[in-house]
Amino acid sequence: MKKNNFVTISHLGLSGSFSHQASMFYFGKKNHFLSSDNIAQVCQNVKQKKADFAVLPLENSLTGSINESYDALIKNRLSIVGELILRIRHHLMAKTGLRLISRCYSHAQSFLQCAKFFSNSKHIEQVAVTDTAKAAKIVKEDNNPNISACAPHLAAKLYHLKIIKTDIQDNHQNYTRFAVLSGSKLTSGNKISIAFSIKHVPGSLYRALKPFADRFINLTKIESRPVFGSPWEYLFLMDFDVTDKDYEVQAALSDMKKEISNLTILGRYQKGKTYES
Amino acid sequence: MKKNNFVTISHLGLSGSFSHQASMFYFGKKNHFLSSDNIAQVCQNVKQKKADFAVLPLENSLTGSINESYDALIKNRLSIVGELILRIRHHLMAKTGLRLISRCYSHAQSFLQCAKFFSNSKHIEQVAVTDTAKAAKIVKEDNNPNISACAPHLAAKLYHLKIIKTDIQDNHQNYTRFAVLSGSKLTSGNKISIAFSIKHVPGSLYRALKPFADRFINLTKIESRPVFGSPWEYLFLMDFDVTDKDYEVQAALSDMKKEISNLTILGRYQKGKTYES
Repeated sequence: MKKNNFVTISHLGLSGSFSHQASMFYFGKKNHFLSSDNIAQVCQNVKQKKADFAVLPLENSLTGSINESYDALIKNRLSIVGELILRIRHHLMAKTGLRLISRCYSHAQSFLQCAKFFSNSKHIEQVAVTDTAKAAKIVKEDNNPNISACAPHLAAKLYHLKIIKTDIQDNHQNYTRFAVLSGSKLTSGNKISIAFSIKHVPGSLYRALKPFADRFINLTKIESRPVFGSPWEYLFLMDFDVTDKDYEVQAALSDMKKEISNLTILGRYQKGKTYES
Repeated sequence: MKKNNFVTISHLGLSGSFSHQASMFYFGKKNHFLSSDNIAQVCQNVKQKKADFAVLPLENSLTGSINESYDALIKNRLSIVGELILRIRHHLMAKTGLRLISRCYSHAQSFLQCAKFFSNSKHIEQVAVTDTAKAAKIVKEDNNPNISACAPHLAAKLYHLKIIKTDIQDNHQNYTRFAVLSGSKLTSGNKISIAFSIKHVPGSLYRALKPFADRFINLTKIESRPVFGSPWEYLFLMDFDVTDKDYEVQAALSDMKKEISNLTILGRYQKGKTYES
């Protein structure tokens, strides 16, 4: 990956969003960053060669997997080529003081993650916008002294707002795992993510996992995705470690194919570090 | 269960919420329904004997498992004694016509599920409140002709609002699985839900599933929950079918215990039906 050259990274939200911050941690600040207000567009920017990479949230420690991100990366045939984990901290920011605030802009997901704060501040109206950085931008550009944004630290810095209440999230152990996506696959890295379907018969998952257990390959995530409309079909998401015995992984995948269908290698990449937002 | 007597059911949201509707489908309308504005309180009402049962959303087909519900039922030592699935339909409702609307009240989760509609209606401000039924109540009680709510059909009926745009959800295959919770366990039913921890070593999940595969017990859900704070510990959620061979299930659970830790039987219950909201 051209980590030290200038690349264009498509991310969710305006400059100052958590995805923008994740992109900067991964690639460094001296790159081109392309904002999008929806997950599908973030991926399409790579597919249409408007960006070299995309950065999308894949799962959150409180709210679980972000199915829309998995769907978009599969649909656009992108590959995961990297990951990083960001501790999510939400701050209340404004141009004035806390006592004046009667309205707050943020992403709907952030309001869900700060439910206790807003439940104890019923006089503050919660207005949902497409991303947290956009919320900060609205507060910057509007002269109303009674408005605020719930957004990351980076947004306060970029839009010159004062943080008037830090860490308003309910749970301080709030982490989001971001995937770095590309139009090309990597062939090295110590982690692989796959998706597959399975016949809904007793023992099918057990048999699908046997090739991995036999070779002492460590699973780091497994999830059956609810497909309520098709009760007899299940989509599985699975991550596993790759050791130096590369041929073992290929053999496990090959054996697994006899028990499953629609195997998609979502990507091979290096396990990510954790950063503070 | 006292399905035909009057019981008190604690549910999320005001009267007219999806949880209230799910409660009425399951128990019938002629019961006492107790509203709460947060998941923890819904469970505490049963623990403190203010209600006989609680009804909580457990997972959604688009957004996955609702970890907060699992946490609250485990923390309050409640058991799942029933389930039902509700197809989620969001409608825009008001006292006036669509052309006048410049503001919409709803739950933050509903705004996320109707993102396309609001992205195409940028002149409508999205104001998040604690539940969809409360949104409808606000519209009923306010004389502002420019406001609307995004809420279920039942809320339109209860708060005498006109549905001015039906089915504004992005995905029409939007289902939520609700659990019926009680302070006492059931000993019969064709489905069991469990939670457990597992040692993070290669093959541990495979070995934990062996007792089920050996006895042809069908798994209907499995999920490793991200515990980003404790990277070496995993919480698993698993559902499986119970056939007439009850002793097989007991033997499988007993064998499984050798491979796992912290086994919690979340409940045994009859598989739920699907209803239209």
